[in-house]
This record gives sequence, structure tokens and C-alpha cells, in this order.
Amino acid sequence: MFQKILIANRGEIAVRIIRACRELGIKSVAVYSEADREALHTQLADEAICIGKASPADSYLNMERILSATIASKAEAIHPGFGFLSENSKFVEMCEKCNVTFIGPSSEVIHRMGDKQEARKTMMNAGVPVVPGTKEAVFSAKEGQKLADEIGYPVMIKAASGGGGKGMRISRSAQDFSDNFKVAQQESVNGFGDDTMYIEKYVESPRHIEFQILADKFGNVVSLGERDCSIQRRHQKMIEESPSAALDEKLRKKMGEVAVKAAKAANYESAGTIEFLLDKEKNFYFMEMNTRIQVEHPVTEMVTGLDLIKEQITIAAGEPLRFKQKDIKISGHAIECRLNAEDPSRNFMPCPGKIEYLHLPGGNGIRIDSAIYSGYVIPPYYDSMIAKIIVFAKDRASAIAKMRSALGEVNVDGIVTNLDYQYEIINHPVFLAGEVNTHFIQDYFEHE
Amino acid sequence: MFQKILIANRGEIAVRIIRACRELGIKSVAVYSEADREALHTQLADEAICIGKASPADSYLNMERILSATIASKAEAIHPGFGFLSENSKFVEMCEKCNVTFIGPSSEVIHRMGDKQEARKTMMNAGVPVVPGTKEAVFSAKEGQKLADEIGYPVMIKAASGGGGKGMRISRSAQDFSDNFKVAQQESVNGFGDDTMYIEKYVESPRHIEFQILADKFGNVVSLGERDCSIQRRHQKMIEESPSAALDEKLRKKMGEVAVKAAKAANYESAGTIEFLLDKEKNFYFMEMNTRIQVEHPVTEMVTGLDLIKEQITIAAGEPLRFKQKDIKISGHAIECRLNAEDPSRNFMPCPGKIEYLHLPGGNGIRIDSAIYSGYVIPPYYDSMIAKIIVFAKDRASAIAKMRSALGEVNVDGIVTNLDYQYEIINHPVFLAGEVNTHFIQDYFEHE
Repeated sequence: MFQKILIANRGEIAVRIIRACRELGIKSVAVYSEADREALHTQLADEAICIGKASPADSYLNMERILSATIASKAEAIHPGFGFLSENSKFVEMCEKCNVTFIGPSSEVIHRMGDKQEARKTMMNAGVPVVPGTKEAVFSAKEGQKLADEIGYPVMIKAASGGGGKGMRISRSAQDFSDNFKVAQQESVNGFGDDTMYIEKYVESPRHIEFQILADKFGNVVSLGERDCSIQRRHQKMIEESPSAALDEKLRKKMGEVAVKAAKAANYESAGTIEFLLDKEKNFYFMEMNTRIQVEHPVTEMVTGLDLIKEQITIAAGEPLRFKQKDIKISGHAIECRLNAEDPSRNFMPCPGKIEYLHLPGGNGIRIDSAIYSGYVIPPYYDSMIAKIIVFAKDRASAIAKMRSALGEVNVDGIVTNLDYQYEIINHPVFLAGEVNTHFIQDYFEHE
Repeated sequence: MFQKILIANRGEIAVRIIRACRELGIKSVAVYSEADREALHTQLADEAICIGKASPADSYLNMERILSATIASKAEAIHPGFGFLSENSKFVEMCEKCNVTFIGPSSEVIHRMGDKQEARKTMMNAGVPVVPGTKEAVFSAKEGQKLADEIGYPVMIKAASGGGGKGMRISRSAQDFSDNFKVAQQESVNGFGDDTMYIEKYVESPRHIEFQILADKFGNVVSLGERDCSIQRRHQKMIEESPSAALDEKLRKKMGEVAVKAAKAANYESAGTIEFLLDKEKNFYFMEMNTRIQVEHPVTEMVTGLDLIKEQITIAAGEPLRFKQKDIKISGHAIECRLNAEDPSRNFMPCPGKIEYLHLPGGNGIRIDSAIYSGYVIPPYYDSMIAKIIVFAKDRASAIAKMRSALGEVNVDGIVTNLDYQYEIINHPVFLAGEVNTHFIQDYFEHE
């Protein structure tokens, strides 16, 4: 097992990883930007190294400085968390060259799964169902239009390097295709420096259902059940739960088996997620693979009793999985609400600033993953998520009741948050009925 | 099901019950003393009624005022929590007369189990092993000495109405008997207005092992496994865990069956606890029955997945248990540390006062049951316990590692607490080895 791990991240996920290290008896090294001197992860780690200015490019995305800090602190491994360098195959290659263990899959797997078209091909070859669409990349609107006409509208225009909703547009007819393609492509060029696009059949009113898998270095892969992440605003997840109200035992088993097949086809190692779209007829299609731990991993931890960060670390240390598929039992129901420092009334504009007063709920079945505290100043440079409120109860109705109670106890003074917005979502009749799809926010919260 | 419940308590247990009510869709009514206007339970409940001055006798022990508040607020039931009126059979009788449901067993059961000698007789008649000792009450040192000589030293001198360590003394020889008897009896007279004493064989270096049971109105009784509460200071529990390192599956099953038998013999209803002494040879003896929810109930909730407060409420509403003994699965390991506002360096003197700053740990497997917040002023009139830190992990070693990490994150400024003391206990080699008994604190922390 590792003696020391460097955490190449900040915020709640860095704190989450530090805690896992501490529980495993592993020393933790935090890296922090100048804006994060007072951050909780900087305070909690056994060592903390400043790696540069506030801007992510100067700090949490600065590969050389992070590797230098790793070598200087004699850490044997790096946990990348999510975001930042977690899916950067170049960084993983650099780790490999420096003999530093990257806690995650190999650079080659990250590279292949990161290219959405490559991932799609891998899955098609493995017999994993994918949304009908282009096999090859598209670079011009004209070329795209021809393919869209063949596939049939509506179609989804997607940037190969896209993510978080950027570089994606729906085209509902031949008339609006060209404009949408150009906007999506320009977003991709601006955001990711890549004009590679592809076109897919647009699945109407789908659910976002993703399967968590764990894979070790010995070819053992298990599925840990699904997360329903259909509550999204502009492709940003807001609420996640497990299990999904849309799946029965048979479909769960089938999709889980496909997820395991997908992970095996990708030659995957570590914790990973296979994202599917599920249509109303319960057809499911591979969307993409996330080659990292995800924000919403706690809901899976609550219903399986596993600690995914600890599993990632032990897998990276070369240990085989201690359980087989038949040992995985899903029990109870978990829901996560993301608390963001943002103003829903002003188009979800981020609202960094000083938390003058903080009181978070506790009690039976309440889990808070957070890196904030009373008096903490949220810097304006990073993601606006400040806490994840996770509840666990015996069934969905009890979990929702618990979330309602928990959100009612949250007290964050000094900044604006999406707390009331989340409260409205979990009390909405369509959410209560478990009949959500990815258009839920658009349909019920963004109508005029 | 009830529409409204009044909570005849304060602090974290009142908050705990309010949360359970909220999750069940039941309105909650808090009662509060003048010292508790700013208390969390007063703020969180749907309604809050001031019932008198700070002194417990004027408020939380004032039966007439609590019943008046219940009737005035149209609450149909009272949850007593622990302490205060929770084991007061006279209060339960008053509830019964007013047609208010007392969430707990009947006044008759409370009365019988509250009289230690009566409880002992009930158990002996039911074939539950008890510590050898007097069958009848003793009122004078002379009379007691004769019986002690027969039982053989060391003996335990106990007040029939005692509790929390008050009215108890060990006598190791005929020479010291009389003095110890008189001190214990005087404590009982002062504390409980009762000079009824009895004498038992003193079990050397026992573990305190208690079994949680649940019993409905239809004679169904299940055991929810044990809690090891051997870490005590002067009979006050400090750390509790489940399962116990001292029990194997066979002994757990046997003691569980005896606990169920004991509850049935008591004609019990609601959540209750059978306390046993376990000696080094794994003989166990009934000590007493607690006819209420206990401070340490969360460790049982963590390893069984049940919500004991909700179970108490549904039982009181007349519903049968939804599970049988075979459905109860104990999995994982839970530990609770009691955080008290007290100064270990000054003989654990209570240290009420203002909490200038508060930061409590969170994350995977961390549960905080508390009623404090940044800026809260702990009143000097009540119990010094301010928070329960509960951890849950896959095994004992992981749970201890998690507790170590969690205690390390606790930040309470402005008052003195037993935090460091707890940290030392959980890092002590004897605790780590799971080889504790009820003399642990005395043996390792109070030697000169």
C-alpha cells in the first residue's frame, strides 16, 4: 500500500480523499493555489504545497508543478479527483514516465474514452447499444447536414471534446441544423480547441442513467448499480439518486451487465461510470464513459456500503477486488442535492464571497460532503459547488422526506445559493412521482 | 398514524425526534424552558411552547405543564426522549388518564422495571440469569452486612431507585461494608428520595453489554444486537460500539434470545434495552432494563439500518413490527463518542458557555447528532453532552480509523470539552485491541 498520496484537486473532493487516506493510514499531501491558503483541504492534509496563482492554469491544471510537488513530497501516487486533470491523458502519461501512480485508468484508456467518437466505436464493436449516428467525425455544417438528413431529425450535434453541456446543440429540422452546428462547433473551438464534431439521433425525453463500475488490474469488473441523474440544468447535474425509479430488477441486471461489458471492452481499471440514455420504451444507449470518480459517487456508496475512493486507492496499489458481482447488494435509497453558490434568479450566476454563518444538518442518514466553514471566503476562480447533501433511507419516499427535512435545516448566510431552488425541485409532483427526464428543469422550472 | 407529537425533552435527542417526525410527515411540538429560547429544538419544531423557568423541576420535569402544552397544542402523543420524564411511571399514568399516547411502554412496565429489585425478580422468574444477590430490599447497613457475608465479597451495594452511578458502591470486605452502604443510601435519599437498597455479588472486570430490543403491541419482540458500553467513567458511558469485540455469533444469538425473553417477561412494548454484565468467562448476568430510547441508540441504527425513533412512533401508533428476527442483519461496525462540555483536567467539571466557533466533521460514514451551533450558549442547567459523533465502517479497525479522523476535524471554540480525552481513549492500545472492561478508564486514565 502507498505511504503517501498527493491530491491534485481542491474543495470537497480533496477533503473526501484526504479523509479516505487518513482512514487507510496513508499520509496526504494537498496542493493549493494562492487563493486556497485558507481552504479546508489545505488545512486538513498532512502536508500542503502551494503550486501557484489562483487561476486554474497556474495551479490545479499546471501539470509540471503538480508533478514537482509530488516528487518533492515523496508521494508515490496522485489522486486527481474530478475535473481539472482527472481525465487528461497527457498528465497521466507524464505520471507514468515519472513512475508516479496515477489513481485511475491508464493514459491510453483515458485518451480513447475521452474521444467520444473513439469511445462510441469501441462500444459498438463490443456490442454495447449506442445511439444511431455518425461513425466518423464531421468538421463542416454541410457535411453534417447530409448525415443528419440520413439519421432523421431530431439530431444531437456534439463536440468530440465537449463536456458539461458545452459544444452540444439539438437540431429539430434541416432548417435549423446549420446554425446549431456552427454554434456548437464554435463553443468547442473556444472551450476545448477542437472543431471535431459528430451527429447522433436525438433521444426524446430520455433519462440519464449511469452505472458505476469498479475494475481491478486483473480483469475483475463489477457493477455497483445505477444513478439516475436526470435532474440537470443545461447538462449540469443538480440532483442524483440511486436506485432509479425507472429501473426494475431485470433492467438493472441487464444494464449492469452491459456496463461491465463496456468497461471490459475499454480495458478499464479503477472506478468508472458508463452513462446511458434511457428512453420511454426502456431502450438504453451508451452515451459516454467517465474515466474518473464522479461528483455523485456518494449515492452509490450509501446503497452499496462501499467506499469508492478507498477502492480506487487499493486498486491502484495493485490489489484485486475483494468481492464479486454476487456480493454486491443494493439496499435502501440515496439522494444527493448539490448546493451551489449561485443565484437562480440571475441565470445561475456564480456568487462567490464570504460565508458569514454556516449551519448544516446532521442526524440519521444525513451525509454532508463539503469543504466550507463559517467564515470561509469562496474564491471566484473555481466551481460554484460548495456542498453535497446526501440522504439515505429505506425507500425513495423516506429519502425525499429526509432531504426535505435536511434542506430545511441548511443555513448559509452571506452568499446566495440554489438551496430554495433545490427545495422546490424535490417537492415538485413530477419529481415526487419519480417521472423525471433530462428535460425536467426546462419543462417545469424554465417556462415563462 | 399521529398528526402531531409533543417532544418532552431538549438538546440533541429532541432534535433527533423532531427530524424523525418531519420525515414521517408528523407535526412536532417542542417544549422549552426560559433558558432554551434559542435552543435548536425550539427553532426546528413546527410549534414551540415555553413551559417555565430554566430549572428542570420548573420545566422539563414539570408534568402538569407538559401535559397542558400537549392538550393545548392538540398533540396526540408525547415522545419523552431519555432522562427527564422518560422513565417516570407517574407521568405515564397521567398521560394514560388524559388519553395522550406516551411513546414508550406502559406505566406499569416502567414502574416494575424501574424498581431494580422488582425487575430482578421478574427476570429470575423468567429464567434470565441475574447476578447472585438479595431477593428482598435492605434498609439498614447491619441487615445488609449479614447478606453480604452470605453472598461473599466483593459485593455491589445498589439503591433501588439509583441510576447514572448514583447510589452505588462496591464493598470489598466486611470491614468497609457499613461505610459504603451508608454513603450509597444517603446518595439515594438525596437524589431519589428513596432509602431502598439491595446487595449483589460484584462481578470483577466485567464488560457492559446491552441488547437493544423492539417490541410491538402484539407480542412480537426482536433483538437488534448488542452495544458494548464498557468505556465508562464512574458509571457514565463515554464511548459505545456495536458489535462488541467480545461476542461471537453464537454468544450474540444466545444473549439476544435471552434479551427477547426478558422483554417478553416484562410484557414490554416500544424500544428498550436489556443491560448485561459479561464476565471474563463469558457468563452474562441481567443488570437492568432501560425502558426508553438510549443516548447510544445510533450505533444500533448504523449496523441494522433501522430508525429506532420511527419504530417507537409506529409501535405507539399501534402498528405491528414490519420485520421478524430473521430479517435483522447486523453489518459493519459503528462507534459513538460523546462530546461533553466538561473539563477532564478539573474532574470533568461541566463547562457551559458560549460556543464561539463550531466546525464538525462530515463525509462518508460520519453521523453527527447534536443540537449546538456557532454562537450557541450552552446553559448551565442541563446535561453536559453537546454532540454525539458516530462513525460507521466495514469493520472495527476501519471504524476506529474513521473516528480518529473525525475527532481530528472537530473544532469547538469558546468552551472546554472532553474531545482530547476521547481522542486518547480511542488511540489507547487496550481499546484498539478491543479488550476493554468497565474499569478501563479507572485503570488507564485515572491512575496517579
